[in-house]
Amino acid sequence: MSQTYGLTPEEIQELSKRAAAAKDVSYSPYSNFRVGCALLCEDGSWVIGANIENASYPVTICAERTALVKAITEGKKRFRAIGLSVDVSPPASPCGMCRQFIREFSDGSVPIFMYGKEVGECVVRTLGELLPMSFGPDDLPDRGARSQILSGSLLVNDNIAGLCHTCVLEGLG
Amino acid sequence: MSQTYGLTPEEIQELSKRAAAAKDVSYSPYSNFRVGCALLCEDGSWVIGANIENASYPVTICAERTALVKAITEGKKRFRAIGLSVDVSPPASPCGMCRQFIREFSDGSVPIFMYGKEVGECVVRTLGELLPMSFGPDDLPDRGARSQILSGSLLVNDNIAGLCHTCVLEGLG
Amino acid sequence: MSQTYGLTPEEIQELSKRAAAAKDVSYSPYSNFRVGCALLCEDGSWVIGANIENASYPVTICAERTALVKAITEGKKRFRAIGLSVDVSPPASPCGMCRQFIREFSDGSVPIFMYGKEVGECVVRTLGELLPMSFGPDDLPDRGARSQILSGSLLVNDNIAGLCHTCVLEGLG
Amino acid sequence: MSQTYGLTPEEIQELSKRAAAAKDVSYSPYSNFRVGCALLCEDGSWVIGANIENASYPVTICAERTALVKAITEGKKRFRAIGLSVDVSPPASPCGMCRQFIREFSDGSVPIFMYGKEVGECVVRTLGELLPMSFGPDDLPDRGARSQILSGSLLVNDNIAGLCHTCVLEGLG
Repeated sequence: MSQTYGLTPEEIQELSKRAAAAKDVSYSPYSNFRVGCALLCEDGSWVIGANIENASYPVTICAERTALVKAITEGKKRFRAIGLSVDVSPPASPCGMCRQFIREFSDGSVPIFMYGKEVGECVVRTLGELLPMSFGPDDLPDRGARSQILSGSLLVNDNIAGLCHTCVLEGLG
Repeated sequence: MSQTYGLTPEEIQELSKRAAAAKDVSYSPYSNFRVGCALLCEDGSWVIGANIENASYPVTICAERTALVKAITEGKKRFRAIGLSVDVSPPASPCGMCRQFIREFSDGSVPIFMYGKEVGECVVRTLGELLPMSFGPDDLPDRGARSQILSGSLLVNDNIAGLCHTCVLEGLG
Repeated sequence: MSQTYGLTPEEIQELSKRAAAAKDVSYSPYSNFRVGCALLCEDGSWVIGANIENASYPVTICAERTALVKAITEGKKRFRAIGLSVDVSPPASPCGMCRQFIREFSDGSVPIFMYGKEVGECVVRTLGELLPMSFGPDDLPDRGARSQILSGSLLVNDNIAGLCHTCVLEGLG
Repeated sequence: MSQTYGLTPEEIQELSKRAAAAKDVSYSPYSNFRVGCALLCEDGSWVIGANIENASYPVTICAERTALVKAITEGKKRFRAIGLSVDVSPPASPCGMCRQFIREFSDGSVPIFMYGKEVGECVVRTLGELLPMSFGPDDLPDRGARSQILSGSLLVNDNIAGLCHTCVLEGLG
C-alpha cells in the first residue's frame, strides 16, 4: 500500500481538519491537554471524539476510545483511518490503552495520523507498527477452552507464533 | 546488549520460575485466564503479581500492573527484567494498557520475557519493541506549560521527533 | 420531587424502550452480558450507548460511559434521566466506575432507571443514592493549590464537610 | 456493631498512622494529590498502598487498589478495616472505581476510615454506605447461564431484589 494508505488527498485533508476541530469538544480541566480524534469509517462516514476526563484520573476516557465507542454503537466497526490531533509539537501518539482498544476492531493495517500544532505537521504509523505482537481476541481462548486449560488440556493459538524466536533460555540450558 | 539482556542464566531461570508460580495467586474467575508476573528489580530483589479481576470487567488489574504497583510502593522503581507467564501456548504478550503502565517506569530497553505453557517456551521483546513511539511523561508538557499552550504559546517536546517522517500530507499540497 | 423525577409518562416509557433497544449494539463477546443505556439530555434529545468489551478486560467501556461520552462530545453535558437495561432479573445497577463517571457531569439528583428482563421490572435510584459522599471535581484542589499543599499550605474544600461526624478516634484519645 | 467497628483503639491509631505514612510512596506528579491507604487484614497483618499515576491519566491506579492487589497477591482477601489519607481537609472519599474494586473482596460491612490533613480529622463509612446497591459477583450470572440468557432462558439473581421498590412505571400503566 502506498504512503497514502489507500486514502484520497481529500480524505486525508478532511481527516486532519476533523481531528483538529474535535479538540473543541474535549473536557480536560485536569490535564489541560486537549486531544481530538476523527475516524474515517469503512462506509465513508466520519465520527469524531475527544478526551473526557474525570476528577478520579483513571476514570478518564481518551479521545480515540470516545470516537470508537461512538462509531461502534452506530454500527461502524471497521475503519479506514484514524486521525489524532493535539495542541503541542511534535504530535503525541496514542497511549497504550487506546492502541489496545483500537486493536479489538482493527487489524494492524489501519493508519493512525498524528497531527501536531504546526501546520502540516503529521506523523503516520499503522496500528501494527504502534502495537506489534499485540494481545487480541485470538489470544484469549474461548471460555470453555480456558476451563479445560485449567483442568489440564492445552489449546494452541497461533497469533504470535510467527514472531517467536528461539528463546535465550535455550542456549542457557 | 547480548541476547541475555544483561541477565545471568540463574536470573533468567529464576524469572521463569517466579512468573509461573505467580499464576497461583491470580484471581480470575471471569476470564479463567491466569497470568503471573515477576519483576527483577534494579536492586536485585524480586516482586511478583497476578491478574485481579472484577465483576465489572474494566475495574480489573492485570498481572504486570499488580506487580509494578507492589514494587513501586516498596521503593523499587527501576527494573532489569519483567517475566510474564500464562497457561496457553504460544505465550501471550502484555496488553497495551500494561505496556503503557510499564512505560512510566522504564525506558525502552527493559526486556519482557513471555512464557507459554510448554517447557522452555519463551518469547522476549524489549518494551521499546512492544510500544514503539510511546506516549510518556515527556510528551505531556508540564501543567503550567499546558495552560500557556491553551492561551497560544507553544512548547516543543522532542520525544518522538526523531521518528517523524515527512508527512504524506506534504506531497498532497 | 415526585416519584417521576420530573419526567412525563411518555419520557419514562421512551427511556425504557431506548435503553432496552440499545442492548442490540452491545459488543460483549467475553462476558455475554449485554447492557444498554439511554440518556435523556437536558435539551430533550436522546443518546444511547452499550458496553464495548476488549480482549484485555480492563480496557472495556461500559454502556453508561459509552452513552455519556457520546452525549458530551455532542455538546450535551447535563442529563434529566439515565436508563440502564440488562437481560437478567432483577436489574443490575451501574458499577462504581460508571457512577464515578456520571458524577463528573451530574449532581446527585439525576435519576437512574434500572430495567430488568421482566416486563415493567424497574428500580430507580438517584446518583446521590448510588454514590453517596462522592469524590468529585470539588474535592480536587486546583493544581496550583495542590502544589502549595505539598509545600505546607492548606486548602479547604467543603464537599463532604456536611457529612463529617465526630470521628470514633476522638473518643479513643 | 459499635462505632469502633470491632477494632481496638490501638488498631484504629495504627490504621491512621499507616495510611498517613503511605502517602510518602505515592507517585503523583500529574495531580500533585497524594493518597495513602492502609489495610488491616483479617489475619491481623497490615498492607499499605498509594496512588501510582501515569502520563496517560486513565492508566493510573489509585491508592486503595494498589493496597488491595498487594494484599490479595499475598493471599489476604478479607479485610477488617481500610484507611485512606490525603493532604487536604476535609478528607476525600474513595472514588467509585475503588469502591467497586473493594466490593469484589468485601461485603458491605468493612469500615473505610477517611483521614484529612488536620489532626484527628476523620470520617468513617462502611462500604455498604458508600456503594449501596452495588454491582458485584452475584449480579453476573455465570458464563454458561449468560449464554442461555442470550438464547432465551432466564436466570434470577437476588442481590438487589430486597432493595427494589415498586417502579414508577407501574403507576403510569
